[in-house]
Amino acid sequence: MELLSENKVAGGWHRRYQHDSLNTQCKMTFAVFLPEQALRGQPVPVLYWLSGLTCNDENFMQKAGAFKRASELGIAIVAPDTSPRGEAIPDDPENSYDFGLGAGFYVNATQAPYDKHYQMYSYVSDELPTLIEAHLPVSDKRAIAGHSMGGHGALIIGLKNPTRYQSISAFSPISNPVDCPWGKKAFTGYLGADSTAWQAYDACHLLRQNEGDKKAPILVDQGDADQFLTEQLKPEALEQAALAADHPFTLTMQPGYDHSYFFISTFIDSHLDFHAQYLK
Amino acid sequence: MELLSENKVAGGWHRRYQHDSLNTQCKMTFAVFLPEQALRGQPVPVLYWLSGLTCNDENFMQKAGAFKRASELGIAIVAPDTSPRGEAIPDDPENSYDFGLGAGFYVNATQAPYDKHYQMYSYVSDELPTLIEAHLPVSDKRAIAGHSMGGHGALIIGLKNPTRYQSISAFSPISNPVDCPWGKKAFTGYLGADSTAWQAYDACHLLRQNEGDKKAPILVDQGDADQFLTEQLKPEALEQAALAADHPFTLTMQPGYDHSYFFISTFIDSHLDFHAQYLK
Repeated sequence: MELLSENKVAGGWHRRYQHDSLNTQCKMTFAVFLPEQALRGQPVPVLYWLSGLTCNDENFMQKAGAFKRASELGIAIVAPDTSPRGEAIPDDPENSYDFGLGAGFYVNATQAPYDKHYQMYSYVSDELPTLIEAHLPVSDKRAIAGHSMGGHGALIIGLKNPTRYQSISAFSPISNPVDCPWGKKAFTGYLGADSTAWQAYDACHLLRQNEGDKKAPILVDQGDADQFLTEQLKPEALEQAALAADHPFTLTMQPGYDHSYFFISTFIDSHLDFHAQYLK
Repeated sequence: MELLSENKVAGGWHRRYQHDSLNTQCKMTFAVFLPEQALRGQPVPVLYWLSGLTCNDENFMQKAGAFKRASELGIAIVAPDTSPRGEAIPDDPENSYDFGLGAGFYVNATQAPYDKHYQMYSYVSDELPTLIEAHLPVSDKRAIAGHSMGGHGALIIGLKNPTRYQSISAFSPISNPVDCPWGKKAFTGYLGADSTAWQAYDACHLLRQNEGDKKAPILVDQGDADQFLTEQLKPEALEQAALAADHPFTLTMQPGYDHSYFFISTFIDSHLDFHAQYLK
């Protein structure tokens, strides 16, 4: 891990690191917030934050306003990138914002030419936590959260690994990607045209098939003025699946809020408080 | 005033407006945060935030994390741009980051070709507040704050207009621009080579010559790990001038903090609390 930069913030430190990833076969950059408790040698739990389309490790760290509450609660935050990066990485031939670079969708691609590098599911759920826990003063208590495409990522990674994450939350998640334009495009490109392969990365499907007794609680906030709500996000499908599966689940529709970080910054403290209950 | 966009945040609204400025002879964009109190028809006081080199109206609004406390206190925040903008506006021939576009230094330029448009002192201290108070649900209680070049701007505008601003604060201000490289370059370009003309825009000089009985209190925070501290910012000169003038003044050196918005976001609530005392 190479330290790229660090800034003191809210009594702790924001740092950016780069490392060679085995999963994505390229250099990956991630950001971490370490509260002062961690720097005093007291291992702290970690909230993994997964960002949305077009983002990298910086958006949440600069715009969410999460550090004061994370400091108070003694929680570290790790924000990975949203795809492999670099000149050698195949991008969408049409350079669209919703496929390829900046749009890894947190899946392990099976289709050439994406399968070599677009292994974001394994990177985020396995390689990155292993690296973080080996090199930084954190415990093995983990929670996962995200926004939009990253909300989808948090839901599927949390649901597929119920013993690894204590709690799951999402802002404006792509809740049912097998049934929306963003998800269909990405899953076709990364996983192929056979939609049965897509279900392993669809939160609604995972909720319905989850028969284990470990069910990490889920908190979702959604702005009702979000321009993507009806066509892309579909939180009502998620709510129905959670209800059918008797999964602990809270969805709050927030009147007047849109898809931006202004929305996230308004409610991030309540998400941190939610995770803190389960990370103790 | 043309509304460009709006986002609900922290119970209030972040809006961006564009208007034709008489002072700068071009279209100017500014951002405003209106807390919910203002939208219920209760005029609220305004904190003007002046940004630093290379910034526009967006940096503070996206990165400072100020809205929750501003909502609690019932304070609106207005963030203007840092220079005139547009293809017709003369820039630094060398396209440097510290002169010309994004670097208006909150002065009224007297030197061609900058004198026609670079009238940021009058724009920020007069035209913009008049516009805001005519069109938005705010009172005529004003405070002023800023960062780096904008900290300089807040200090000089506050000190030159002691009856218009209740209080003044700054993060990492350029405290004595007549005696640092950034200030000398900008003042030479905008005001000419005769440095006697510069003193009207130097906070240390203004403090020493202020003999009125209205002295708006000043709060300054400065990170001691700021890369610009010694060569460009010189808060000790400001402290000495305030002491000599018996001006109410508090400077806090914050250990470990740098020049970034991570620093501002850590202490912005205390600046809002400071201004709130005087805006009631």
